[in-house]
Amino acid sequence: MTTIEKIQSLQKLNSGLYKKDFLLTWEKTEKDLRIILEVAAILKEMRAQGISPRVFDSGLAISNFRDNSTRTRFSFASASNMLGLAVQDLDEEKSQIAHGETVRETANMISFMSDFIGIRDDMFLGEGNKYMREVGEALDEGFAQGVLPVRPGIVNLQCDIDHPTQAMADLMHLQNEFGSLENLKGKKIVMSWAYSPSYGKPLSVPQGIIGLMSRFGMNIELAYPEGYGLIPDVVELAKKQAKQSGGSLNVSHSMEDAMKDADIVYPKSWAPYHIMQQRTELLKNADKAGLKELEQVCLANNAKYKNWEYDDAKMKTTKNGDALYMHCLPADISGVSCKEGEVNGDVFEKYRIKTYLEAGYKPYIIAAMMFTNRFEKPGDVLKSILDRNRIRVGF
Amino acid sequence: MTTIEKIQSLQKLNSGLYKKDFLLTWEKTEKDLRIILEVAAILKEMRAQGISPRVFDSGLAISNFRDNSTRTRFSFASASNMLGLAVQDLDEEKSQIAHGETVRETANMISFMSDFIGIRDDMFLGEGNKYMREVGEALDEGFAQGVLPVRPGIVNLQCDIDHPTQAMADLMHLQNEFGSLENLKGKKIVMSWAYSPSYGKPLSVPQGIIGLMSRFGMNIELAYPEGYGLIPDVVELAKKQAKQSGGSLNVSHSMEDAMKDADIVYPKSWAPYHIMQQRTELLKNADKAGLKELEQVCLANNAKYKNWEYDDAKMKTTKNGDALYMHCLPADISGVSCKEGEVNGDVFEKYRIKTYLEAGYKPYIIAAMMFTNRFEKPGDVLKSILDRNRIRVGF
Amino acid sequence: MTTIEKIQSLQKLNSGLYKKDFLLTWEKTEKDLRIILEVAAILKEMRAQGISPRVFDSGLAISNFRDNSTRTRFSFASASNMLGLAVQDLDEEKSQIAHGETVRETANMISFMSDFIGIRDDMFLGEGNKYMREVGEALDEGFAQGVLPVRPGIVNLQCDIDHPTQAMADLMHLQNEFGSLENLKGKKIVMSWAYSPSYGKPLSVPQGIIGLMSRFGMNIELAYPEGYGLIPDVVELAKKQAKQSGGSLNVSHSMEDAMKDADIVYPKSWAPYHIMQQRTELLKNADKAGLKELEQVCLANNAKYKNWEYDDAKMKTTKNGDALYMHCLPADISGVSCKEGEVNGDVFEKYRIKTYLEAGYKPYIIAAMMFTNRFEKPGDVLKSILDRNRIRVGF
Repeated sequence: MTTIEKIQSLQKLNSGLYKKDFLLTWEKTEKDLRIILEVAAILKEMRAQGISPRVFDSGLAISNFRDNSTRTRFSFASASNMLGLAVQDLDEEKSQIAHGETVRETANMISFMSDFIGIRDDMFLGEGNKYMREVGEALDEGFAQGVLPVRPGIVNLQCDIDHPTQAMADLMHLQNEFGSLENLKGKKIVMSWAYSPSYGKPLSVPQGIIGLMSRFGMNIELAYPEGYGLIPDVVELAKKQAKQSGGSLNVSHSMEDAMKDADIVYPKSWAPYHIMQQRTELLKNADKAGLKELEQVCLANNAKYKNWEYDDAKMKTTKNGDALYMHCLPADISGVSCKEGEVNGDVFEKYRIKTYLEAGYKPYIIAAMMFTNRFEKPGDVLKSILDRNRIRVGF
Repeated sequence: MTTIEKIQSLQKLNSGLYKKDFLLTWEKTEKDLRIILEVAAILKEMRAQGISPRVFDSGLAISNFRDNSTRTRFSFASASNMLGLAVQDLDEEKSQIAHGETVRETANMISFMSDFIGIRDDMFLGEGNKYMREVGEALDEGFAQGVLPVRPGIVNLQCDIDHPTQAMADLMHLQNEFGSLENLKGKKIVMSWAYSPSYGKPLSVPQGIIGLMSRFGMNIELAYPEGYGLIPDVVELAKKQAKQSGGSLNVSHSMEDAMKDADIVYPKSWAPYHIMQQRTELLKNADKAGLKELEQVCLANNAKYKNWEYDDAKMKTTKNGDALYMHCLPADISGVSCKEGEVNGDVFEKYRIKTYLEAGYKPYIIAAMMFTNRFEKPGDVLKSILDRNRIRVGF
Repeated sequence: MTTIEKIQSLQKLNSGLYKKDFLLTWEKTEKDLRIILEVAAILKEMRAQGISPRVFDSGLAISNFRDNSTRTRFSFASASNMLGLAVQDLDEEKSQIAHGETVRETANMISFMSDFIGIRDDMFLGEGNKYMREVGEALDEGFAQGVLPVRPGIVNLQCDIDHPTQAMADLMHLQNEFGSLENLKGKKIVMSWAYSPSYGKPLSVPQGIIGLMSRFGMNIELAYPEGYGLIPDVVELAKKQAKQSGGSLNVSHSMEDAMKDADIVYPKSWAPYHIMQQRTELLKNADKAGLKELEQVCLANNAKYKNWEYDDAKMKTTKNGDALYMHCLPADISGVSCKEGEVNGDVFEKYRIKTYLEAGYKPYIIAAMMFTNRFEKPGDVLKSILDRNRIRVGF
């Protein structure tokens, strides 16, 4: 399909995304997820063709990162810039959990001329997503009371529950690798825990993956060592969704077995749910000694599972010995970025460029989330952009 | 009045603001202050109507904050962005007072393509405003000598003496709450010290308030515990101005008495002038032990005045029991952001949204200061913007 | 020549700069260096005339500073902004040398929507320039593999070997002071070490100066105390270039003798090459005690050469007692920014404004490097900009 054909097809769909925050993929209808993928694809084509899709003459996009991040930060900055927004960083005290009036007030104070707030808050279980909703309510009130001329949209750039911009970028990658969303039906995707010499990696990526891929008829194998479970509610939800979409979700505890006949593999480390719960309590109490101790226990436990490395032997057992390897990056690559890690060096190298391509969808996904939040009929606006035909560079 | 009527009215006024830095409100004529309020109001209406008042195709606005700040930083970024300027932060050594060649050179080095420099420097008594003037002289020289293609304008984002963007935003709030500047004549405004569990809050807000509100015929009650005086020169000036404008300024030492029949109340903590003088000396000498000791003395002294909280009982004694409560935010709210503070929780809640509205004028005030610095006939340029009718978002 | 005449003259030249990184001046032909000077001059004239040369409707310029910097940071931000790009800072771990997959991956992750990456990496001998080339190769791969829609250009904002934006700005200053590049032939320029109370200043400025000025028929006197040599390869290259261009390069060890009959003097401190080699090893090993010890040895050695100050007596021996004084700023000015330093206070004051003018060319040089990297026929694009006649401020 040409770009104009894609736009025309999009124009026929009614979007439910207008003026809605993007906080969890499973709060969105499948149609709305498809609309985001379509908008992202069209924006990507325009960029490649040198067309500028700038729709803001001015405006701010606030980045509120309560955690360090290079990749997501740059993706957010790229998406904002492409649409014409300037990024303004909000550097809050990162070690504290803000509530009540502080959140309410700050949300309004930064938003007098803001169009979007991108929030990353993944350190505390039970807090990140809640915080985003609290910000959202404060913005609702501010807009209703005439404090804000525009109700800024919120984009979840990673929370304790979901990492929707990552999961959607991953889905867009799969769509492109397999030709269509329809082709994903019946494919086996393995979301597997993997060994890492570090500790405390968030749960949001595996949860985001099972929470989204279960919508498209895939057979999901969720594999991890006993005791390394995710948030139970999310797993339950993913199971239900998988069933509804004609797929399945199976939990198992051997990486070796899980990988057999896989079409797609996503080996990635995370901390066990119950450890993250303890860690959250310790962080809340700023208990440094406790955190240090927990880290030692955790690393010692991890070390029992060094064989959870995605290596050549395991790869050979996947479909045609060539399952698509995925990772949100940076990966812990054995012999490259660490001694022993999530993935063997040669295996990673084989799929390295593909992981770059995978990451490359994220700026467009974020832009599409902003675009559909702001425009009721995204297809019509994209049509206007194409007609305007403003080039991005030069004359 | 419609936007176009406001613009036509503005076009008849001769502005004295062109190419002038904005450092102290009392250096500006009343007409020029009114022009800034008018420009700010028109820019605010345009934003609300979705019209982009962008007048810079490119250009930099330098933010030079020698102190942490979220609110003012975002206001400056918002104003800059609305007009088409990109913000570039200058992160200087914050603990040192720069003078002479360092100031002269840095001012030029950052200004080759700058249009404005926003400076916040409120830590050292006798230094902040002086520093801004030193920067101004360096820019004058650089421009005269052909080093700079444009003489960047300076906006005082808070100094040791005044906080003009805050005071002007507060005045704009009063103008809107009471219908007009004329309606402020004869109104009683109480600028009162209030208890806070923290220490060393700058004097610039109360000084800015009495220095500006005394221009508009208001009856100012400046209340504080004995020993908590402001810079004497500023109080003298405000008294003189109050008399000239047909109002008055009275100093007293009981919050309870001061609040009686007030139309407007501004209860806010500050450090006593003589303490700020000692603190400045200690900061200059980097005397950490001395600073620690002074803080203890000061907090102990503050603690004697915990009854200087604006509470329900005091509110009831104001005009109709409903004086307009103002604050520059964040307030120390008893039972909310601290145990005992400047204002009772319920009282604050009653006026909470109004304080947000109050803060919301600041970006437009800053933009108006920039706009009138750059354009000799701001009314004519606003007319051109309206005629151009460029929308800010979409098509 | 008028601006349009300059453009027409430029249109006749074939640029070799298209799609090429700018890493070392001596990798560029003399014609290409002249093209950059011409583009910079035209952009500077446009700015002065209020014409906006904005050619990017959106796009990012990444600033990757592995060292603190105000001047170069602002120059890069200014150049980017003038052309229409937003600056996004990459804050990497500054104390580590990244290699391999980390560099490769990060380079791609930040570049999905980037047009330029400005890198400053001057701390480690043998590393800075190498790092830039590694980033370049990663970008080449990413572009070839379809990861990146555009191959971002790299601008060397200072490395261990060269400081090309500084040297080119200095050359532009000389061109303007002496009327033309041709007039520089036969002129004596003294690049001299000078005393400084600080330690570890990089070699890139003196190396950049001798590496560039040797291309234009100048007679270079490189003066430093015995043991304070530069990277030998760069000195050899500069000697060869000087000979080819009809000039000369002579190394000597007395500031007093060197200054005699000089047309231009550039007295500036640097650390000896062999010390920088030791320092690099210590930094690599994070040997704090060793670094402290080396600093002491180095400062003690420096102290033997306090007479290497450019003072009135030495100035009097230069051509007409009035050689053009140059410095990259900030200078160590005796009695002003330090007790004893690189230059006498009165002497500096005499040329102070000239050093500001010298610095003022840098934003335009950087913009010209970007412009010629992106446009195959820079003259044609500049002609289009002039024809478009978009004003930068107002209507």
